[in-house]
Amino acid sequence: MTDTQQLQAALAAAQAKPKANKLVIFTWGGDLDKVWPTLILATTAAAMGMETIVFFTFWGLFPLVRNDVHLTGDNWMQKLLSLMHQGGTQHLKLSQMNFARMGPAMMRKLGSEHNVASPQELLELARDMGVRLIPCQMTMDLLGLKREDMIDGLEKPAGAATALAEAQDAITLFI
Amino acid sequence: MTDTQQLQAALAAAQAKPKANKLVIFTWGGDLDKVWPTLILATTAAAMGMETIVFFTFWGLFPLVRNDVHLTGDNWMQKLLSLMHQGGTQHLKLSQMNFARMGPAMMRKLGSEHNVASPQELLELARDMGVRLIPCQMTMDLLGLKREDMIDGLEKPAGAATALAEAQDAITLFI
Amino acid sequence: MTDTQQLQAALAAAQAKPKANKLVIFTWGGDLDKVWPTLILATTAAAMGMETIVFFTFWGLFPLVRNDVHLTGDNWMQKLLSLMHQGGTQHLKLSQMNFARMGPAMMRKLGSEHNVASPQELLELARDMGVRLIPCQMTMDLLGLKREDMIDGLEKPAGAATALAEAQDAITLFI
Repeated sequence: MTDTQQLQAALAAAQAKPKANKLVIFTWGGDLDKVWPTLILATTAAAMGMETIVFFTFWGLFPLVRNDVHLTGDNWMQKLLSLMHQGGTQHLKLSQMNFARMGPAMMRKLGSEHNVASPQELLELARDMGVRLIPCQMTMDLLGLKREDMIDGLEKPAGAATALAEAQDAITLFI
Repeated sequence: MTDTQQLQAALAAAQAKPKANKLVIFTWGGDLDKVWPTLILATTAAAMGMETIVFFTFWGLFPLVRNDVHLTGDNWMQKLLSLMHQGGTQHLKLSQMNFARMGPAMMRKLGSEHNVASPQELLELARDMGVRLIPCQMTMDLLGLKREDMIDGLEKPAGAATALAEAQDAITLFI
Repeated sequence: MTDTQQLQAALAAAQAKPKANKLVIFTWGGDLDKVWPTLILATTAAAMGMETIVFFTFWGLFPLVRNDVHLTGDNWMQKLLSLMHQGGTQHLKLSQMNFARMGPAMMRKLGSEHNVASPQELLELARDMGVRLIPCQMTMDLLGLKREDMIDGLEKPAGAATALAEAQDAITLFI
């Protein structure tokens, strides 16, 4: 290949390369109606062959808590926060129409009748499909969450700088 | 043109091409204060000559329901959900300060006094300006919404894969 | 340098250039749990050397109101809205678990015990680090907010077109 041919090939590759064959979701909400779109978008992207990362922060962290864990926390404030906000995918609420948990129950039933996977199934599916699930270190510190309180298959907790570095060249959504 | 000149031209074009002359909004929220920014951003982008797509999912679907339609649904659960959440742009609530619908009424009045278009006007304007309005198929199935319950001028319902494919090379916002 | 060498250098530069060395946040939420991620992401991005812009719209505008200002507004509706939603970083609420302001107080205390900066500190830090803070002109008009009601160091209020123009080539998040 001549220099010119090599350049032509490099340019063609640069132009052909899909700009954003990567999806980075910042999942801030912990309610069922936020977790569902997060996981549906993440698993769909993974199925499309996209590199997919979900960075879980703030309330978004709670669905990653093991269903069999009762959060404790280091002090009375964390304990109180934890009591008010039980973690795990079995305890998700809706951000609207919660009505003493009637809403989520209906939504789950509707979901299963229409062959939409449950959050727990989607979370396991995402993990199995290679979606990278990264919990926010700062939120874990703030809320007194420990690594052993969380489900298996998560990546090492990381901070905003890691999430922003990954977000370069990606489709980004804050959910 | 020599090879080198052609390459120079191609490189210049690649560098000059605006990266993201496209906007893809994932509209998840159905309240007035989510619908408004969605439609203001979409119509502004269209006016700037950007290709603009709004993918309506979850609660975001309700403002697309015709104002004269009373949602029914296939079963008691969908009926109940529908009763609790009447669709259409005339029934939008605020996510905050709703106060028995006083808040939205005030906000609308403030909007009209300051020459900010109403959601209904903005929705029609967006449609007329060529903004592509795509309802989420899965949410429609889940909530028992039918094509004939929705306003005219929408594109064929589609799924997450379509939305993600369109989001390549676009500015993306999840509202 | 030969033409070919120049082209090679230009192509290498185009390929090496980080696509999105810029972050544009559309901050719509005014609650503590939305302001915090906004400012943590913005200051982190600025520390990473990214050009960083926060466009404050809707409820997101209230934390920019000076703590010593009592909003008034031009008419009874704006006055009522303002009374219901006192601005300034000292009055931020949580979007969840507000419990008569117990939640935010706990969260702030947790934050300070874990060396997470307060919103006021982060806002000043962002300003000092060169983060461009742009209030939405339309929201200011709508809510009767005046330039002198807002904290110092903000850029000139601007509209959606400015925000979208800046969002080209940037990581974009709607918070």
